[in-house]
Amino acid sequence: MNVLIVGSTALDSIKTPKAENPRLLGGSASHAGVAASFFSPVKLVGVVGNDFPKRYLNLYKRHRIDLNGLQVLPGKTFHWSGEYEANMNNRRTLLTELGVFETFSPKLPSEYQSSPYVLLANIAPSLQHHVLNQMQRPKFVAADTMDLWLNIALPDLLKLMKRLDLFVLNDSEAHQLTKADNVFGALRQIHKLGPQYVIIKKGSHGSILSGPRGFFICPAYPLHKVVDPTGAGDSFVGGMMGYLATSKGAIDDNIRRAMVYGSVAASFCCEGFGLTRITRIKRSNIEIRVKELEKLTRF
Amino acid sequence: MNVLIVGSTALDSIKTPKAENPRLLGGSASHAGVAASFFSPVKLVGVVGNDFPKRYLNLYKRHRIDLNGLQVLPGKTFHWSGEYEANMNNRRTLLTELGVFETFSPKLPSEYQSSPYVLLANIAPSLQHHVLNQMQRPKFVAADTMDLWLNIALPDLLKLMKRLDLFVLNDSEAHQLTKADNVFGALRQIHKLGPQYVIIKKGSHGSILSGPRGFFICPAYPLHKVVDPTGAGDSFVGGMMGYLATSKGAIDDNIRRAMVYGSVAASFCCEGFGLTRITRIKRSNIEIRVKELEKLTRF
Repeated sequence: MNVLIVGSTALDSIKTPKAENPRLLGGSASHAGVAASFFSPVKLVGVVGNDFPKRYLNLYKRHRIDLNGLQVLPGKTFHWSGEYEANMNNRRTLLTELGVFETFSPKLPSEYQSSPYVLLANIAPSLQHHVLNQMQRPKFVAADTMDLWLNIALPDLLKLMKRLDLFVLNDSEAHQLTKADNVFGALRQIHKLGPQYVIIKKGSHGSILSGPRGFFICPAYPLHKVVDPTGAGDSFVGGMMGYLATSKGAIDDNIRRAMVYGSVAASFCCEGFGLTRITRIKRSNIEIRVKELEKLTRF
Repeated sequence: MNVLIVGSTALDSIKTPKAENPRLLGGSASHAGVAASFFSPVKLVGVVGNDFPKRYLNLYKRHRIDLNGLQVLPGKTFHWSGEYEANMNNRRTLLTELGVFETFSPKLPSEYQSSPYVLLANIAPSLQHHVLNQMQRPKFVAADTMDLWLNIALPDLLKLMKRLDLFVLNDSEAHQLTKADNVFGALRQIHKLGPQYVIIKKGSHGSILSGPRGFFICPAYPLHKVVDPTGAGDSFVGGMMGYLATSKGAIDDNIRRAMVYGSVAASFCCEGFGLTRITRIKRSNIEIRVKELEKLTRF
């Protein structure tokens, strides 16, 4: 089955202590879409300006991503620039130019509206609502978010959470949302806000699922070196939703394994700037790391 | 088989935002010893003053801990006092009174010297050396440490590491020792300093083993509430060594499972002040959580 993914489609200029790379393909929808494309057909919803490089459109196409929902508008593509510290965890935003993203109103082609799996990747909650309003009865709806929306759009986000099957956020956002010092305390509180499934991402420490069958402790794939973690969280949810959409049976039978596939997708994301590494791998590379993670966690 | 454990035997006065508990039984050897005692006979090496409460000697005895190596000297027992912040991760030391610990020189009873498993729990590296010098050929030697020794006794610690089978430290200590930003990079560097097995503890994020058969990602048991994390790391290594000492076969066949047992011992430690919770459980309580962790990590 296919996955509809809405989110940002951006140009990222990324600086690390080792290198600087301007105007890479980035944005939550790009990262999630590429990761999902290893498993399922992807329908992308986003917006770019008429400065958007043709090679990036070709990159989407090489991943067989359906671009009927990608608006190309006169103006500039959303441009984000950030700098990482040596530990690759702390980053600061140097520049945010919204461009055509400022007035983005997602409009779903009719053939998108029946997608069974919907990933509302990180984007303003009002836009996530807007996409959901255009959908016929999806089978499974997941949303990711970021601290910015907790700060400036919390009421919209809380309303959205009641419409979700799965809500994904990172540990610092979970703390910000619930004030709980403990991940498991936070998970319990977030369930009360609506979603039956909640995942808290903890970067290199992996992630934790809480669902009807209890917790799952999902490992991160061991990396000796992180080149650029931008988009790792998006790759995680994208890979996970892509795998879920392709799996037979109940969500609860597949979501743990889907998370591991997402985790592996995120590991490839981190090994190169932007999408440079993950766009050079095959499904078989992912399978090898999933098998390794099985061995690395068995006792 | 039995485990010899040397470390500190102390009185801990612990303050959290919720409560304050003076003069609890504490110290690395106490925590490690109690945790190990669920699996194997423990021979304790330590020192206390003549103010040491009889009820704490009885507590050791209830856990069938051999106290022939515990010196009782005129003077005061080592007293440590610390305060935790609300998140239960950051703590500051309020007071350290070394007492009889200041001139402690571990002396092993002859029947201790042939112990096959040796745990050099957190204590000055010179004392860890001193214990090792008195041992006949132990089968497996592990040592834990703390940031203090990296700061004031690094040459001693580096010399010790060449004599170890297993070295255990936490993530911030691993960073301090190797300057590596990444756990897996740090592990590689620590192997070069001597030990064939290295474990980096990451608190509530679990721990990572690196050994001859590669990595093992060991989960922490999910706790909704941490009452007092003091001694969790000691309980982890103690439980692990106790389980290893009782296991048949090669170290490499058992160490992963041993870590999970250590992880569960640490979870019980965190659920009460000092040793109050872990001294009220049975081996069967540990087995239940190990089974749960098997389910929580399966995919």
